[in-house]
Amino acid sequence: MISKNKKKFLSSLQQKKYRKKYAAFMGEGHKINYDLLTENISCLEIFATREWIDENTNILPEKVTEVTTAELKSISNLKSPPQVIGIYEIVDHDITAKAFSETLVLAIDGIQDPGNMGTIIRIADWFGIKHVICSEDTADLYNPKVVQATMGAIARVKVYYVDLPEFVRDYKNETKLPVYGTFLEGENIYGRELSEKGMIVMGNEGKGISREIEKLITDKLFIPNYPPDATTSESLNVAVATAVVCSEFRRRMI
Amino acid sequence: MISKNKKKFLSSLQQKKYRKKYAAFMGEGHKINYDLLTENISCLEIFATREWIDENTNILPEKVTEVTTAELKSISNLKSPPQVIGIYEIVDHDITAKAFSETLVLAIDGIQDPGNMGTIIRIADWFGIKHVICSEDTADLYNPKVVQATMGAIARVKVYYVDLPEFVRDYKNETKLPVYGTFLEGENIYGRELSEKGMIVMGNEGKGISREIEKLITDKLFIPNYPPDATTSESLNVAVATAVVCSEFRRRMI
Repeated sequence: MISKNKKKFLSSLQQKKYRKKYAAFMGEGHKINYDLLTENISCLEIFATREWIDENTNILPEKVTEVTTAELKSISNLKSPPQVIGIYEIVDHDITAKAFSETLVLAIDGIQDPGNMGTIIRIADWFGIKHVICSEDTADLYNPKVVQATMGAIARVKVYYVDLPEFVRDYKNETKLPVYGTFLEGENIYGRELSEKGMIVMGNEGKGISREIEKLITDKLFIPNYPPDATTSESLNVAVATAVVCSEFRRRMI
Repeated sequence: MISKNKKKFLSSLQQKKYRKKYAAFMGEGHKINYDLLTENISCLEIFATREWIDENTNILPEKVTEVTTAELKSISNLKSPPQVIGIYEIVDHDITAKAFSETLVLAIDGIQDPGNMGTIIRIADWFGIKHVICSEDTADLYNPKVVQATMGAIARVKVYYVDLPEFVRDYKNETKLPVYGTFLEGENIYGRELSEKGMIVMGNEGKGISREIEKLITDKLFIPNYPPDATTSESLNVAVATAVVCSEFRRRMI
């Protein structure tokens, strides 16, 4: 049974200010909870049906509350109520720009759509990008819609919110690595050399990369449309562009 | 002014059965209407503010109705009401498999999410794929959410709904071209040869390519995760995978 107070707490986690206050977020459904539990993300409580509990005894956290499907439905955001809802701890990771000098990192400059944000975390996970650095105005990772769109990748990719222009400046100074961004006037990404270490910046859905960050980009890339002289869409969706760029970086390393 | 009857008509276009009955669909906002009008898609009527009409005199269709922002808001699906809403004719194109023997075509096998569907049309447009063949259970192109997600690409890409297994069978027989699909057990797409002509099949969000179509695939491809032995997301979002695959085909042709 879920107490009235617990229900109130769960529903408060829809809002960023309460997620911050309680340092907690909610994940719904088997896939996401399975990934979070097996990656040892600190779990505060699991609400699940008897059936789910019985089938997942090997991954259960300390605190498990058995509930009915009807109860899960009453606290779920999903159209079809899940068998399990978990509450996990939000841990703030400290970072320094220098820590990323041996790897490829992704920086997100103001992406707003929760679906795009979650999809980008899933892309980072697929292409082995372990760290995603976000500007403070980027969609919140712990927004339930973002959590769902990550399809479990939230358990494996570390996401940081920082003063992005300041961070990119430090990153450049301390690592001397390239900072990539996509621009319509950029260089054809297919033909040029790409570094195995560096930063890839992806910008806001409508406005692209902000002026302040654009000044810090060392390598402007372009995903060519086909054929090059055709009238076509003005751009690709930002998650789609992120995937094509990450794929191009990794293609050369496989 | 929009009459009560017209409002009823517009609101009926939310539903597929009425879009079919009236052979009409609705596009909202400047970008989509601009693209549809300049690509000469047959426009039944435009509802727009005085300001929008004055700024777009060169592309206006025959029937233009001036309305207020409040009126547009009352018929719009968008959060921020658009300056213009247009009603366009749905034209059914007849096709034969043979017609696609000189090009690269995309086939969609049961994609359900309107956002994914629209994004895929936008991807096809970017990568110069002019024809998209869909199974009958694929999300309707003229669903307002799909129309919006195409960001105008709906004006340039031709989309057909067919009995897909039958169509793919005919296509193979008549063109002898390869039929590609992505599978976890497929071949690394980066390293292998890809034809300039052929069909790329993308499957349903959860179930992938259906059994019946899978039997017709001649070339199974795989987008490698990185590093190849890492625990990672189980798959990429289908629109994201479509983009990476299309990018790989076009990379070799630019």
